Amino acid sequence: MLELRKDPVLKRWVIIASGRPVAHTEHRVSEEQRRGRQNCPFCTGAEAETPREVLRVPVAAGPDPEPWAVRVVPNKFPALASEGRLHKSGVGMYDRMTGIGAHEVFIETPLHDTAFAELSIEQLEKVLWAYRSRTDELSRDPRIKYVLVFKNNGRAAGASLEHPHSQLIATPVVPRRVQEELAGAESYYAYKERCVYCDILSQELAARARVCVEGKHFVLLTPFASRFPYEMLLLPKDHQADFTSTGADQLSDLARVLRDGCAAMGRQLDDPPYNFMIHTAPVSHTAREYYHWHIEIIPRLTRVAGFEWGSGFYINPMPPEDAARQLAGTLGQPGPKT
Amino acid sequence: MLELRKDPVLKRWVIIASGRPVAHTEHRVSEEQRRGRQNCPFCTGAEAETPREVLRVPVAAGPDPEPWAVRVVPNKFPALASEGRLHKSGVGMYDRMTGIGAHEVFIETPLHDTAFAELSIEQLEKVLWAYRSRTDELSRDPRIKYVLVFKNNGRAAGASLEHPHSQLIATPVVPRRVQEELAGAESYYAYKERCVYCDILSQELAARARVCVEGKHFVLLTPFASRFPYEMLLLPKDHQADFTSTGADQLSDLARVLRDGCAAMGRQLDDPPYNFMIHTAPVSHTAREYYHWHIEIIPRLTRVAGFEWGSGFYINPMPPEDAARQLAGTLGQPGPKT
Repeated sequence: MLELRKDPVLKRWVIIASGRPVAHTEHRVSEEQRRGRQNCPFCTGAEAETPREVLRVPVAAGPDPEPWAVRVVPNKFPALASEGRLHKSGVGMYDRMTGIGAHEVFIETPLHDTAFAELSIEQLEKVLWAYRSRTDELSRDPRIKYVLVFKNNGRAAGASLEHPHSQLIATPVVPRRVQEELAGAESYYAYKERCVYCDILSQELAARARVCVEGKHFVLLTPFASRFPYEMLLLPKDHQADFTSTGADQLSDLARVLRDGCAAMGRQLDDPPYNFMIHTAPVSHTAREYYHWHIEIIPRLTRVAGFEWGSGFYINPMPPEDAARQLAGTLGQPGPKT
Repeated sequence: MLELRKDPVLKRWVIIASGRPVAHTEHRVSEEQRRGRQNCPFCTGAEAETPREVLRVPVAAGPDPEPWAVRVVPNKFPALASEGRLHKSGVGMYDRMTGIGAHEVFIETPLHDTAFAELSIEQLEKVLWAYRSRTDELSRDPRIKYVLVFKNNGRAAGASLEHPHSQLIATPVVPRRVQEELAGAESYYAYKERCVYCDILSQELAARARVCVEGKHFVLLTPFASRFPYEMLLLPKDHQADFTSTGADQLSDLARVLRDGCAAMGRQLDDPPYNFMIHTAPVSHTAREYYHWHIEIIPRLTRVAGFEWGSGFYINPMPPEDAARQLAGTLGQPGPKT
């Protein structure tokens, strides 16, 4: 059973996925369950072990689908089902709806042992192209309100398989966190008539105290109010509300900046578990003027404790200026001003 | 340096506590740093090792402070400083203020090896009395806007010392999460002219599908839209905005219901790490009619992965009705209806 339920106070939706195996709750993933190179369903030759693929990017341009560079397949244990009618109902004062959406996996490379930060720029471009293509495709489904692309890297970040992969969940409601960003950006725009993210970019590029990587079209920085040590934010320099508007000429620069960020984090922090997620404007949203898509990258160094859960108030022992200096340092870049 | 910084989009405050030892980021707490019974600063006889206590509850009523039952001391590595002037300033488009507040530790018992759920009702009452007393006292400081009491139990929940203890952080702003609850409860009240928590209570006490423990004055249940497996919510049955209004006659019932909840969780889940936090109305808030104080209890079974961080959208593989039945079952209670 997949059901969405809404918290009556916070208006936050939760997926109650009682059909999912308990093994998918991370603490139960034992070393045996964590499938290594042997029997890996994402390696070349094991294509029949995954659900039927929804997208394949071949190594070479042209009609030949073999060998493949990137495959996209439905998640074997989806958090939301792609088939069925979206039905909303009440239970007394509570609200719920059927768990309709999509949950897909991006197999980022046929090579089992390659870290994300070790992928070639060409390969990463193919992965990003697949993100864009699937987001575009799912946005046409009238039941879908939002498409979230994310990566869990390493067991402590929630990954249950070693083989490099990322995921996508398409939801029938706009997630609360995205709504909050939209509301914040809208209220800033209402006051300033400027995009808040564009203002962040111009202040950061002038001060350079928190810039880690600067490409032609993209910038990676540590946010002024970072919640976590070495948290990073990747933004397109020019105002752009949708990730899917990223042009083919920009994907290569995006691949480079994202890879540099992940590589810097790996060098500075000894390959920590991490997550990244792409925040883009909701499907058919009119927030074009005030929203600015971006990628959040969070190394999972600290555990969130009671104070953080209870307050939404984070304690970060690492000033983002120090983090930026260290991260940029690993890339041999001049590094931010002190 | 302790500084508060505000996220310009989400308006969320973060404490940048660069003076805190890195050992306080949970992943670095090695077994050696995790001080056991030997050299424990919270045991009887080691009173001089903690900062000077702000409150002591003796075992026996009367003028004799020895032996002590509960001690409250400032945190040795505070996230917020209790001395100093609250100063707010801007840095370009960004906002910050000095890290003023309070950070205290409740030593819940002199006995090193007692689990929270094993404390006697009398002892727990003394702990709850100390929570109430310190919250009351700090609420009189004009710099303080909110007092959050919480417990991190077990290393994976953020505890760095074994000896049973809980904490309090008093902040110069109302934490974002509490603001969200206030806003949700206010909008419900504006529509219904009833407290949303009171409505939850009457629906839950009628349906009984998610009630785990019912006392005379307090109820413990698993929320309809639980984010996490076995998440629990403890509420006073009668409408009450402030934890500090809990009468002396109610503290004993609160102790019993809270202890039963923690004991049920310990039995069902083999003593998991967990957090609890008390959500009460902000200092000098006028939300008396629509806010209802409560305690959230969260066993730390799953790791939050990229999707959750990126969306605020939780996937819970355990329906709260099943969790409630199992938890109530461990207490030998009739258990909720199926």
